[in-house]
Amino acid sequence: MKRYERHADTIAQLIHSGALRPGDRVPSVRESSRTRGISPSTVFEAYYLLEAQGLIHARPRSGYYVSARLPAVPGQVPPAEPLPSQPAAGSIGVAISDLVFEVLGSARERGLVPLGSAFPGLELFPLERLARCLSGGMRRLDPWNIVQSLPPGDERLRQQIALHYGLHGTAVDVGELIITNGAMEALNLCLEAVTRPGDIVVVESPTFYAALQALERLNLQAVEVATHPREGIDLAALAEALARHPVKACWLMPSFQNPLGSLMPEEKKRALVALLARHQVPLIEDDVYGELHFAPERPPPAKAFDTEGLVMHCSSFSKCLAPGYRVGWVAAGRFATAVQRLKLMTTLAAAVPSQQALSEYLAQGGYDRHLRQLRRSLARQQERALAVIARHFPAGTRVSRPEGGYFLWVELPPSVNALALHRQALAQGISLAPGQIFSADQRFAHCVRINYGHPAQERFEEALATVGRLAGALAPG
Amino acid sequence: MKRYERHADTIAQLIHSGALRPGDRVPSVRESSRTRGISPSTVFEAYYLLEAQGLIHARPRSGYYVSARLPAVPGQVPPAEPLPSQPAAGSIGVAISDLVFEVLGSARERGLVPLGSAFPGLELFPLERLARCLSGGMRRLDPWNIVQSLPPGDERLRQQIALHYGLHGTAVDVGELIITNGAMEALNLCLEAVTRPGDIVVVESPTFYAALQALERLNLQAVEVATHPREGIDLAALAEALARHPVKACWLMPSFQNPLGSLMPEEKKRALVALLARHQVPLIEDDVYGELHFAPERPPPAKAFDTEGLVMHCSSFSKCLAPGYRVGWVAAGRFATAVQRLKLMTTLAAAVPSQQALSEYLAQGGYDRHLRQLRRSLARQQERALAVIARHFPAGTRVSRPEGGYFLWVELPPSVNALALHRQALAQGISLAPGQIFSADQRFAHCVRINYGHPAQERFEEALATVGRLAGALAPG
Repeated sequence: MKRYERHADTIAQLIHSGALRPGDRVPSVRESSRTRGISPSTVFEAYYLLEAQGLIHARPRSGYYVSARLPAVPGQVPPAEPLPSQPAAGSIGVAISDLVFEVLGSARERGLVPLGSAFPGLELFPLERLARCLSGGMRRLDPWNIVQSLPPGDERLRQQIALHYGLHGTAVDVGELIITNGAMEALNLCLEAVTRPGDIVVVESPTFYAALQALERLNLQAVEVATHPREGIDLAALAEALARHPVKACWLMPSFQNPLGSLMPEEKKRALVALLARHQVPLIEDDVYGELHFAPERPPPAKAFDTEGLVMHCSSFSKCLAPGYRVGWVAAGRFATAVQRLKLMTTLAAAVPSQQALSEYLAQGGYDRHLRQLRRSLARQQERALAVIARHFPAGTRVSRPEGGYFLWVELPPSVNALALHRQALAQGISLAPGQIFSADQRFAHCVRINYGHPAQERFEEALATVGRLAGALAPG
Repeated sequence: MKRYERHADTIAQLIHSGALRPGDRVPSVRESSRTRGISPSTVFEAYYLLEAQGLIHARPRSGYYVSARLPAVPGQVPPAEPLPSQPAAGSIGVAISDLVFEVLGSARERGLVPLGSAFPGLELFPLERLARCLSGGMRRLDPWNIVQSLPPGDERLRQQIALHYGLHGTAVDVGELIITNGAMEALNLCLEAVTRPGDIVVVESPTFYAALQALERLNLQAVEVATHPREGIDLAALAEALARHPVKACWLMPSFQNPLGSLMPEEKKRALVALLARHQVPLIEDDVYGELHFAPERPPPAKAFDTEGLVMHCSSFSKCLAPGYRVGWVAAGRFATAVQRLKLMTTLAAAVPSQQALSEYLAQGGYDRHLRQLRRSLARQQERALAVIARHFPAGTRVSRPEGGYFLWVELPPSVNALALHRQALAQGISLAPGQIFSADQRFAHCVRINYGHPAQERFEEALATVGRLAGALAPG
């Protein structure tokens, strides 16, 4: 073994043992050279090797970092990734809500292992500190702020949100920001602002069930567009849909799509925004998982490339900081006034205590530190979930390897019915999100979405193995 | 002067001086007889006289109480009450939202005397104690409650709300209660649950502008029904409307209607519910002012007479306890599942901290004491506002005398344009709610709604006098 191979092996072991974790910075070339007594060029050679193995990657002017998606443990064959989706052509009326409610309703029992949940584990959030911010924020509150918190919402909070975007490279105007009752309200208001009953809206395939429910509620038609499990919506297919249909809006998740976990590369996001601008079609961007990236840099939202105010960028603190506080927002571009008015008409205002608590928390600092911990935690759990799936799921299973968020999209052998699997899992005290709820035509009948964001490790791994065994029993031979 | 007249005079002076206030209990017959050394029958005669003068009234098995609506101060001619409204027959499309937003937007400056505001003064609310309940509630929170707070909402809070109704004589089932983001969301969800675009909905004339905006947003047609300034909607006119139109819902405020302040008598509410049951038309009951009664007893909501689950009773803590917390609810009867699903689809859940704070506050006790103070305060301010109007408004002015809430409906001489008055008042630092925003056809062009719920007394009376002088200048000779 050559000297650079030995050094590469040392680093690889640190990574496999978990001492160096996805997103961690690898010791710099100068540092390694000094502490190991080897030449800088030897260190470089070792790092090139590790990079070729997919274990680390370079970040310009910053050094080397442990990759989010680790290659398989030797001796274990990793499941393949799902294939890009192939939705039916044409538009379709949506009538999925009853099924969604049936599935979600059954998953709300306290005792269940929540593999079907939409939220990560509550132990990952600074709930104690937020509670202190609540009382601090409200005691210092000028009562006038109760009036001032009418839409667009608390001024200081909106400034802090705009600042956070700015520090991460996306320009968001305070004037276009409206605080909402979570991202769910933001997304629904945006859709209502730009459509009328009967209009056609583009969604991904598969797509977040709440998008389908929103379309159903507003009597809209869905056009589902092919989506790649790693790179997001297929732009050629989208261009075709835009040419064929009078599309009034696109509701997409360019970063860590729910349920696929796909992340559109930066250039693809730029091309998406340009394509929609050519057609003057508004983009409703759901970015609630944008902060949960495993790579060192926050992926820019599509909003970052918007020069025409056509992107309505929606997000919230519910998935990354303060579940239950119901503080979301939209940077609504040219639709800001319309959305603000709809908010006033339908729910009047967001809760003042929640807005004050978040504003206080952000002013105190520490948000970025919390996010780093949360991301590391989720990245680790994904590794373990993938390992359990490789070991316990039936042959022919495909699974996504998202670079962020807390969902895996698992494609089971075609004969497995996910609703049947969901019912069997429930009987074993485990919830699942069956693939049927992620498409208007229920085509993902052999897929499930797995939430790996609950850190009760042993219980989680055992439940996931149980699901694998149940799926195996449902798959023939 | 006879002995009983002398005693009546003493009590009358106590009332006029403010020592005994609207809603206060007058000393009992036995007490007066003992302390004054007069016979019980003399005291009874005195109280009969005071009752005939309208100063006090008897409450069965409880004694005598100071009346809410005092007769005029001698020497001052009180303005007449407004006449019942006479809306146009037929249904009408609604396009009022732009005007409403223009008016409301201009009234949001901090420096204004808020006669046009929809909220009472914040100094009337226990904001400090609520802030303590926030931190207490959240620190004791089992994190599972963050999940459990999904619709229908926090279980303990829903029980406390049902209990409060029960103690005041109205049976509300915990199972039909859904916590919402204020009453505004509850009302909008109810309307959405029972209508489709193009449907016809009955509202009062005049009606709360937010009801008109909700109809406009959902593309519904309004049928405005004649409404009496003291007794609420005209049931004969309503019966006619139900016979003539395929009405899909009624959105009404049976207690302390906004803007009229009218209170439907109990028997009339019972008849309303029976009439709607015969037509199987759901009633969306907006009861946000129901707790703000000046008479000793809380008026029962229409919901109290509902045996078929057709009444969707909406209310909130925003006007009577916790402005800005955005905790409202609906007891939705047979529509509970539909409303709960709409809530989940559009805003997911109500904020957990707000729900916890209210639940904590209610558990600690003292809500009824707070309400009594608030009611006394509002009743006193109404007296003063009526006196200022009698003194400073032009001849021909008519004004309502509501038995609760914090709005006066002022009908000015027909030549006064309320929008012009609103603009002139704004220039003087005073906001107003012009009559035009309370009807789809803007027919109340010579009316204004005055908020008397802001206790900064001198500033308030001066502003109101200014409005009277401005109106006088706009009225010819």
